[in-house]
Amino acid sequence: MEKTTIFDIVIKLLEQRKFAELKLIMQQMNPTDIASIFDEAEAKDVPIIFRLLPKELAAETFAYLESEQQEQLINAFSDKEIKEMVNELFLDDTVDIIEEMPASVVSRILKNTDEATRRQINELLAYPDDSAGSLMTPEFVYLGKDMTVGEAFAKIRQVGVAKETIYTCYVTQERKLIGVVSLLELVTASDNTKIEEIMSENLISVGTKEDKETVATTLAKYDLLSLPVVDGENRIVGIVTVDDAIDVLQEENTEDIEKMAAIVPSDKPYFRTGVFETFLKRIPWLLLLMVSATFTGMIITGFEDKLSASVGVGIALTAFIPMLMDTGGNAGGQASVTIIRGLSLGDIELRDVFKVIWKEIRVSLLCGVVLAVTNFGKIMLVDRLLLGNESITVMVALVVCITLVLAVFIAKLIGCSLPIAAKAIGFDPAVMASPFITTIVDAISLLAYFLIAQALLHI
Amino acid sequence: MEKTTIFDIVIKLLEQRKFAELKLIMQQMNPTDIASIFDEAEAKDVPIIFRLLPKELAAETFAYLESEQQEQLINAFSDKEIKEMVNELFLDDTVDIIEEMPASVVSRILKNTDEATRRQINELLAYPDDSAGSLMTPEFVYLGKDMTVGEAFAKIRQVGVAKETIYTCYVTQERKLIGVVSLLELVTASDNTKIEEIMSENLISVGTKEDKETVATTLAKYDLLSLPVVDGENRIVGIVTVDDAIDVLQEENTEDIEKMAAIVPSDKPYFRTGVFETFLKRIPWLLLLMVSATFTGMIITGFEDKLSASVGVGIALTAFIPMLMDTGGNAGGQASVTIIRGLSLGDIELRDVFKVIWKEIRVSLLCGVVLAVTNFGKIMLVDRLLLGNESITVMVALVVCITLVLAVFIAKLIGCSLPIAAKAIGFDPAVMASPFITTIVDAISLLAYFLIAQALLHI
Repeated sequence: MEKTTIFDIVIKLLEQRKFAELKLIMQQMNPTDIASIFDEAEAKDVPIIFRLLPKELAAETFAYLESEQQEQLINAFSDKEIKEMVNELFLDDTVDIIEEMPASVVSRILKNTDEATRRQINELLAYPDDSAGSLMTPEFVYLGKDMTVGEAFAKIRQVGVAKETIYTCYVTQERKLIGVVSLLELVTASDNTKIEEIMSENLISVGTKEDKETVATTLAKYDLLSLPVVDGENRIVGIVTVDDAIDVLQEENTEDIEKMAAIVPSDKPYFRTGVFETFLKRIPWLLLLMVSATFTGMIITGFEDKLSASVGVGIALTAFIPMLMDTGGNAGGQASVTIIRGLSLGDIELRDVFKVIWKEIRVSLLCGVVLAVTNFGKIMLVDRLLLGNESITVMVALVVCITLVLAVFIAKLIGCSLPIAAKAIGFDPAVMASPFITTIVDAISLLAYFLIAQALLHI
Repeated sequence: MEKTTIFDIVIKLLEQRKFAELKLIMQQMNPTDIASIFDEAEAKDVPIIFRLLPKELAAETFAYLESEQQEQLINAFSDKEIKEMVNELFLDDTVDIIEEMPASVVSRILKNTDEATRRQINELLAYPDDSAGSLMTPEFVYLGKDMTVGEAFAKIRQVGVAKETIYTCYVTQERKLIGVVSLLELVTASDNTKIEEIMSENLISVGTKEDKETVATTLAKYDLLSLPVVDGENRIVGIVTVDDAIDVLQEENTEDIEKMAAIVPSDKPYFRTGVFETFLKRIPWLLLLMVSATFTGMIITGFEDKLSASVGVGIALTAFIPMLMDTGGNAGGQASVTIIRGLSLGDIELRDVFKVIWKEIRVSLLCGVVLAVTNFGKIMLVDRLLLGNESITVMVALVVCITLVLAVFIAKLIGCSLPIAAKAIGFDPAVMASPFITTIVDAISLLAYFLIAQALLHI
């Protein structure tokens, strides 16, 4: 692809220190691609390359950089350069950048910002992390309902380039949100049409404190380009644009996936996280789950006397423990992950809990019976006949297969109900995925295994 | 929230069969919300409610319905109604609908479509599933480079409402894509400016055969509202809009998550999938993984003589099998899921394989040592002292802890390399997640466990 070639050329020019050529080429490039050049550049070159960019493109590129690089650049900037940068940046990007910076850098940025912008930045910084308020930008176009389309265009022409989007304009009355009009509607209307006549009063909006995941899914659900954020009195205070909503969706998906895999979520890409940091994200759950496996061990130890009393059968039973545990874990994982995803996409609501349980019960019985029958055949054919293991009797196979049905049943039941329970009490359902479920299912199904063995094999 | 209230009112009106009121209220609603009313309605009411909607809103709502409801409606439609519907729908939506319909319905739709549209539909249907071609719509605005901004506006006014988006216009010359201009740039330029002067030649485009996940991530990466799709000769044949890209991202995320949980992916929401269908999506991997656990069982059986020779130690060792297996599975799952996600987000490339392995080796040793030390303390304090299990000697604890370090090491190594290997040979890395990894890690670490026990405990 052509893109790759340009990128290769740029890296070469950078190595050869041909800055004049570099400047010409970068002016033709996308801020996203320019930002990836910085990843390849040596630290000392970063400010040099950055200063080759024209002002506007520089600001756009800055917003795409990693926060380490942003900090490094700000430290290299003069006060004048900081001032220019903040003027060019969209306010929500400035706030995102500030949130990642150490206090000394923040105060330098704020010092070089005019009074009005500083006030807006401080307002945005005051919203809790992960809220609509922290995600939005106050840079939107608002119109009055008595304006004509011609007047609206005059206003858009005047303020347009400084706004994050002009494609959806918001109609306000005493700062309250009363309507919305798309630029498509403005373009296709005649100049003296009143905004009131073409605006839609069917408004989708979110409150400033709404969780940012809800904000993103709402925007996606209604196929919007921007979503207005209103305060307690329905006054519009900002908008969230579709590009930021996509970023939130991708981040939340990564976070869910990490939680499902028993990892403490991180918001940094793989290679930006150091070895020790990665270790710290992974060890807590490993430790917790390891220690909880003590119970499973205690169950085996508890049946010690019985297992050792009939050695052959004891070992035969032991040999099936890994299969029972894995199958239980997998069956539970399937149910929990399906429910977690359904909850996160809004396909499943809290009130559906009994519908979910009833469905999972039926699915688990179907799965359990098919697995048990297959397993019975496999045990008798492979383990007994083919491998000639004499201690594996029909009764042993029966014990294993009855436990299998039970383990799958319990696994699916726990797997589907724990995520819903977690959500009901305000926890993140994603934590209730395979690793957590496995630990519980292991203990219960092992206990069942030995009790069934005791009853049927009289060990 | 206000939305919920309107929804409740509507359902009530529907129950009371007050269609006149229903009609008034629905006209004020969003197509997305109207579509969710149909989910609550009885089958026989669906065409009645649908016919209450004004034509344009009806078409928009139709695109949001489930395919069963769409089929039901088309069967209830007259030929004239079908004709009107296809005229109102965007072409990519029509194609999406047709793809889900049985042949008889498809031929009825095509029969009621004019020649030109039918040709376009057939062209779009010819693109492979999951390709940019199948995702795009040919309804975009194209301009000539010699047009003035005034002429461009005249064209947009004329064709605008029939196009999926007018916010990004594409500049073509002999159908070849040569530039792009945003409506913002058009609005802020003077009427007699030439398009050539304000268009950007820095083009991001994809080929018709590009995988739809790549299309969506490209659009997201460059923060675009639409992405042009070009044929082999760089002629623009369609565009993909941001709302469709979001849907693809969410579907692909769900698919990855399902594969990671050993489920055959489904594209239907939880409650739209029947019990038997859900069973069919889950049983293949459960069966495969259950049967592969045979090897783990064989390893235990293989050490049967040794385990039964020293009964106390044998049972003590057995009691730690679940803990070792779970920890190995969790450690491997963490690595594999991190790498799978990194690959899917583009943070990790195939060429990074050795960087990944080197990082995971260090992380695994850190994790392994911390787990082993904790576990050693736990075994000696809890299992031996507190629970008074005499068969657990320092040597037994050592065997368990050495195996633990080894199991975590192997798990992370396999967990990080299998997804990359899968991608290298063209398989989906997502399949190489916890369940699959667990099965392999179980067998290897059990083997290691018994070999280490043999060497250190002389069993």
